[in-house]
Amino acid sequence: MAQKPSIPKGTRDFSPNEVTKRQYIIATIKKHFEHFGFQPIETPSFENLDTLMGKYGEEGDRLIFKILNSGDKVKKANIQALEENNLALFSNSLSEKALRYDLTVPFARYVVQHQNEIDFPFRRYQIQPVWRADNPQKGRFREFYQCDADVVGSKSLWQEVELIQLYDAVFTDLKVEGVTIKVNNRKILSGIAEVIGAKDKLIDFTVALDKLDKIGEDGVKKEMLAKGISEQALEKVQPLFAFSGTFSEKITQLSALLESSEEGRKGVEELRFICDAIDKIGLQSAVLNLDVTLARGLNYYTGAIFEVAAPETVKLGSIGGGGRYDDLTGIFGLKNVGGVGISFGLDRIYLVLEELNAFPETVSSTSKVLFLNYGDDEILYVLPALKKLREAGIKSELYPDKAKMDKQYKYADKKGIQYVVIAGETEKNNNIFILKNLVTGDQKQLTTAQLISELS
Amino acid sequence: MAQKPSIPKGTRDFSPNEVTKRQYIIATIKKHFEHFGFQPIETPSFENLDTLMGKYGEEGDRLIFKILNSGDKVKKANIQALEENNLALFSNSLSEKALRYDLTVPFARYVVQHQNEIDFPFRRYQIQPVWRADNPQKGRFREFYQCDADVVGSKSLWQEVELIQLYDAVFTDLKVEGVTIKVNNRKILSGIAEVIGAKDKLIDFTVALDKLDKIGEDGVKKEMLAKGISEQALEKVQPLFAFSGTFSEKITQLSALLESSEEGRKGVEELRFICDAIDKIGLQSAVLNLDVTLARGLNYYTGAIFEVAAPETVKLGSIGGGGRYDDLTGIFGLKNVGGVGISFGLDRIYLVLEELNAFPETVSSTSKVLFLNYGDDEILYVLPALKKLREAGIKSELYPDKAKMDKQYKYADKKGIQYVVIAGETEKNNNIFILKNLVTGDQKQLTTAQLISELS
Repeated sequence: MAQKPSIPKGTRDFSPNEVTKRQYIIATIKKHFEHFGFQPIETPSFENLDTLMGKYGEEGDRLIFKILNSGDKVKKANIQALEENNLALFSNSLSEKALRYDLTVPFARYVVQHQNEIDFPFRRYQIQPVWRADNPQKGRFREFYQCDADVVGSKSLWQEVELIQLYDAVFTDLKVEGVTIKVNNRKILSGIAEVIGAKDKLIDFTVALDKLDKIGEDGVKKEMLAKGISEQALEKVQPLFAFSGTFSEKITQLSALLESSEEGRKGVEELRFICDAIDKIGLQSAVLNLDVTLARGLNYYTGAIFEVAAPETVKLGSIGGGGRYDDLTGIFGLKNVGGVGISFGLDRIYLVLEELNAFPETVSSTSKVLFLNYGDDEILYVLPALKKLREAGIKSELYPDKAKMDKQYKYADKKGIQYVVIAGETEKNNNIFILKNLVTGDQKQLTTAQLISELS
Repeated sequence: MAQKPSIPKGTRDFSPNEVTKRQYIIATIKKHFEHFGFQPIETPSFENLDTLMGKYGEEGDRLIFKILNSGDKVKKANIQALEENNLALFSNSLSEKALRYDLTVPFARYVVQHQNEIDFPFRRYQIQPVWRADNPQKGRFREFYQCDADVVGSKSLWQEVELIQLYDAVFTDLKVEGVTIKVNNRKILSGIAEVIGAKDKLIDFTVALDKLDKIGEDGVKKEMLAKGISEQALEKVQPLFAFSGTFSEKITQLSALLESSEEGRKGVEELRFICDAIDKIGLQSAVLNLDVTLARGLNYYTGAIFEVAAPETVKLGSIGGGGRYDDLTGIFGLKNVGGVGISFGLDRIYLVLEELNAFPETVSSTSKVLFLNYGDDEILYVLPALKKLREAGIKSELYPDKAKMDKQYKYADKKGIQYVVIAGETEKNNNIFILKNLVTGDQKQLTTAQLISELS
């Protein structure tokens, strides 16, 4: 007896029900990406190792899944490196390719490689899996999808405005109402650091500030002091902890704080542009607000920083994020291609929809109707009707075997199929069908045309 | 200056245009899979190495992409195996996971692992990429999609009938008319081998017969003789080369030839069942015919064998295939789960559609309309209209920068955007929009509602 098979840790099988729900979310995101003029690209699952290595920091490098060279190439194994316990070097001697770690680096590679075919500004979206050799834990997997939309080749702030509208459109459509789109700006963070005389401690400062939610005001201050930020500086920064009100009100408070910093003023101006535009056009269900503690991948972003928080009733944290960056493609030798982009967290959004019970009932992988099997002659009778139902877009299946009716009904019941069509000898002779609703128990005698209109 | 980046050989970047066309084919296949009651599953991109190894023969084992163990695990490298030039053993000491090689073995693993959650007969489809370390050549890639639909847990021949209808529905919908669905049956091939007294040479016999298209009648006979099949046997098999006419006519000829073989008669009976059913219900655009030379993965199939040939005007060979198998899950310890399935060859189908110019014009990743940028005030004026267009499902984009009109028009032109909306100060003040068709040059003054109805 063979062992019961399993799958690698951190990976998942998706059942029909799960795939259908995931496809619903993906299709919704994709639809809005396209309505906003984004175009899809796809890149290979694995890239050349040197395309990926060194792009995600030391930690990232370690989490990249490498593909073992095949055939004779493994002879190139650097045994000396293994003996010297230089495992990175040993691994690299065995591998030339690696699985995609995110969609951003492959996108940067794509833009450089295809720069002559691309018309800028280039609005691209990409929905594909990525792989990370992370330690699996609740909600963190070794294979997961990313859903990214970016515009590269334009510095216009209208894009920030449009991306906020895009978030609003997607979450409204998904019936996830009341998400908060938090906005910040790298220039604001730099400006604050400048104003408090801690420009050289920008990273320490923002890392600490980012923890406000978790460790509170006192905790943040303690950490800042520990990092060598002065008491005096902390006093200046005090208003940050008291910010409140609408986006617009917070900008006013921030503006006073940052008056003396040129970069800070520029940040305020950018935020105000976005705030005014959204005020004028409105959002459907999302709330936009300023969060000065928001930093995310600070080293990466140069302007706007976005993060979307799930509705407050759902304790799930961030379900999306993004921002503006100045130099996407520099690592591949093409300078000055900046852009701005956002990402949707598919797995988290799935959990939010589950929790809110927001998946529409129509999102089902199950057939709408099962044609019961009364024997070969009867099947020949039902097949033309079955064909017409399918042509009308009604998911329909035929019970393949001439099993006991009991068994056939049980199959429909277990699979959650709502209707069965009864077509035995009598129905065949009278050229009709009986449609039975398994939920209500109702039965109706119908023609093919009536079947279609009843089930549509 | 960094080197211009590239991707691993045998892999592909897909441009917006290509992704959109591929998505169109996939969406069409998926739609019909679902209309026929198939449900989607997804399995991880990589499986445990021992799930895959030994399932595809020696050649297959070599073509499986292995994933290098990460971190400290590479210390387990079997250096002795390397020194002894046992590269397979060395590789296996460095890897515990491997990329999916096809969708069938992961499906078998899935069925066994989830057998208690599955209601049989289980109609599943799966559309995911697979990876093979094959030598890349024209039309053969190291990463490509498979689109499979299978029913497991039922022996009913109605499924063969439905799968033929499914092929017909998909290719008709894709406007690929006149495909030939070739059918054969493993029992026919066994029967012929039995009748000619070469039962022990079944494989040699079918491998030779399979080459009829390429090497002709004489070539096949020569090969059979070389493999030790007697002159006498070849005489008996002579009618095979003269088979002609419709499916039904060929069955009659075959029936005479196989009269003395029980297995052969069973094969004829099965073919006749399928032929009669399809005769009665009809096909929309495909042609069904018997091809006694069709063998495919003979060792695998136990009943029906299918292959779809592209329309004769397109020289592209097989664009799909499948068949019936008795024991899918035995390798994982669950006996007697047979089934029948078919597969669609996405890359080949793509080429067929290109050649036939059969992609609908609506299959485009490009926005339908570009709103020109006349400045911030004008943009605030157009944004509500832009939002309404998007809500109406019209792909619409805004030129983000206030660039020269010349440049904006050029962008629309290069990207193949058919319409632009002109909304400068005058239009803003008059609360109208000018819609310009860049193909015809026509211009119209419209309200938002009229814009929507014009572009829908």
